[in-house]
Amino acid sequence: MNTLSGKRIAVIGSGAVGCYYGGMLAHAGRDVHFLMRSDLNAVQKNGLTIFTKGEEIKLSPVKAYESTEEIGPVDLVIIALKTSANAAMEKLLPPLIGPETALLTLQNGLGNEEFLAERWGAERVMGALCFVCINRKEPGVIHHLDHGSISIGEYNRPVSQRVKTVVAAIKAAGVESRAVEMLAQERWRKLLWNIPFNGLSVAARANVAEVLADESLRTLSRSLMNEALDAARLLGHTIPDDFADHQINRSYSMGDYKASSMIDFEMGRPVEVEAIWGEPLRQGIKAGASMPRLEALYAIIKHLDSQRPETK
Amino acid sequence: MNTLSGKRIAVIGSGAVGCYYGGMLAHAGRDVHFLMRSDLNAVQKNGLTIFTKGEEIKLSPVKAYESTEEIGPVDLVIIALKTSANAAMEKLLPPLIGPETALLTLQNGLGNEEFLAERWGAERVMGALCFVCINRKEPGVIHHLDHGSISIGEYNRPVSQRVKTVVAAIKAAGVESRAVEMLAQERWRKLLWNIPFNGLSVAARANVAEVLADESLRTLSRSLMNEALDAARLLGHTIPDDFADHQINRSYSMGDYKASSMIDFEMGRPVEVEAIWGEPLRQGIKAGASMPRLEALYAIIKHLDSQRPETK
Repeated sequence: MNTLSGKRIAVIGSGAVGCYYGGMLAHAGRDVHFLMRSDLNAVQKNGLTIFTKGEEIKLSPVKAYESTEEIGPVDLVIIALKTSANAAMEKLLPPLIGPETALLTLQNGLGNEEFLAERWGAERVMGALCFVCINRKEPGVIHHLDHGSISIGEYNRPVSQRVKTVVAAIKAAGVESRAVEMLAQERWRKLLWNIPFNGLSVAARANVAEVLADESLRTLSRSLMNEALDAARLLGHTIPDDFADHQINRSYSMGDYKASSMIDFEMGRPVEVEAIWGEPLRQGIKAGASMPRLEALYAIIKHLDSQRPETK
Repeated sequence: MNTLSGKRIAVIGSGAVGCYYGGMLAHAGRDVHFLMRSDLNAVQKNGLTIFTKGEEIKLSPVKAYESTEEIGPVDLVIIALKTSANAAMEKLLPPLIGPETALLTLQNGLGNEEFLAERWGAERVMGALCFVCINRKEPGVIHHLDHGSISIGEYNRPVSQRVKTVVAAIKAAGVESRAVEMLAQERWRKLLWNIPFNGLSVAARANVAEVLADESLRTLSRSLMNEALDAARLLGHTIPDDFADHQINRSYSMGDYKASSMIDFEMGRPVEVEAIWGEPLRQGIKAGASMPRLEALYAIIKHLDSQRPETK
């Protein structure tokens, strides 16, 4: 895959992240097909609007569908579902998959590439980390607040031509992107932030500024980072000593930012419990790490998540 | 003090616990003076009612007061305030205290005897642990559900004559009671249960049955007990190995019981953060214990408690 020009692309999970990256690719002329649920009618009627960097990008008409059967086989599936909805992929993905179809997961945490690889073959799978502050306040309207960079890599393999192709297409769409050689290591680096800040946003109902202003929570967030750092190193990843400090320090500029898990929890939506806390805990413990604080945080969040009315 | 007959007794903090123990003593003929706030009018009008063991005990009139100035010096002050209201004692206690006045705290957790000793002298201070399931659904009406035993000891001294006197008076009032030689050790034994079960009732919103039914929470509760057990031993207390197992096993019979902290939290009242989690953590760490799960639990509960509207 040397170019995405003329290739068929499907976006599964059309929340803020899927609409932003898919929308920017479509705006740049790529052939993007969106699977939509709650936003379908609004987007078919009014198109997709992205407010980014002081600019309003309007896409209309948008190729939006109610089912993946209507989309049919594509060259690339971009997966932006919440990890808590992974089970839905068993039915959603097969209609999209042809002999050469590549899968790119933009999902949070650990276990997502493995989920895809077990079902549709490791050779199809790429993963990406999105560093973006974004939200969707009404159907079909995306507010891109800050950052946007997306790091893309192969699953357990070095950077390939197709990774370079996707990175180039995203850059051409005006979004920062880079290829990463060691995707799993990048995931652990991102988890160093997500484990404490998403975690305490749910367990202690504290936004970023509140975690940093509360001495006990700030100390705990740093201790949780150290547990993740130890686990990542036991798993063979290289993360420098000052990376955890850097993660704390850069958080001060975020102010009252609410981690995505906090918004999910407040809205009564599933929290990504296994991808962000459960799977890192299991992998860390298997590698011999001691993660008592993460064990406590995971148990608390898992129980809180289980109390949503729809899961009772 | 060889008898409580003819002695003046004050009860400060007339919630369920204060009304139950004070009410039973008054019913047995002791001279008990209650400081009351929200319940004062109802109790002055209708007296105090205790439903216990299938019996309805009616006390009327009740010696209930709006201030401790009206009560004046007494021989024994029974303190049943929530520990989160300890600061109020600076003003409440002085009018009650004469040269020989003894202080008996029925409060939860650690630090309460120390609070009294620092302000009014260690020689006055006794402490007690109440093992009782009790509630107050309307002003002046106490429902005694189960148990009731109260263990009483001196603060950092062996059992004295006055401890025996109070124990005897409580027994004579029909309530199980015993003298304990090592009060601090008894407090740690009780904390082995309160730290996990009260803690997870707030942090994970789980009652006793829910903690036990959730494998991750049950494992965490046991790990929290082990941390407390190690700390207690480093502090010189003797707690047998099987005591934590015993605490888990006895909890199965409690069913959907909500720990007092859960009720406080749900009602928007202060949670006893420092007495149950903060002070044990500080004492344990000072003694060289490793308490990472308690550290996490404490930080989370402290922050949740700080978010009550009245504390913001």
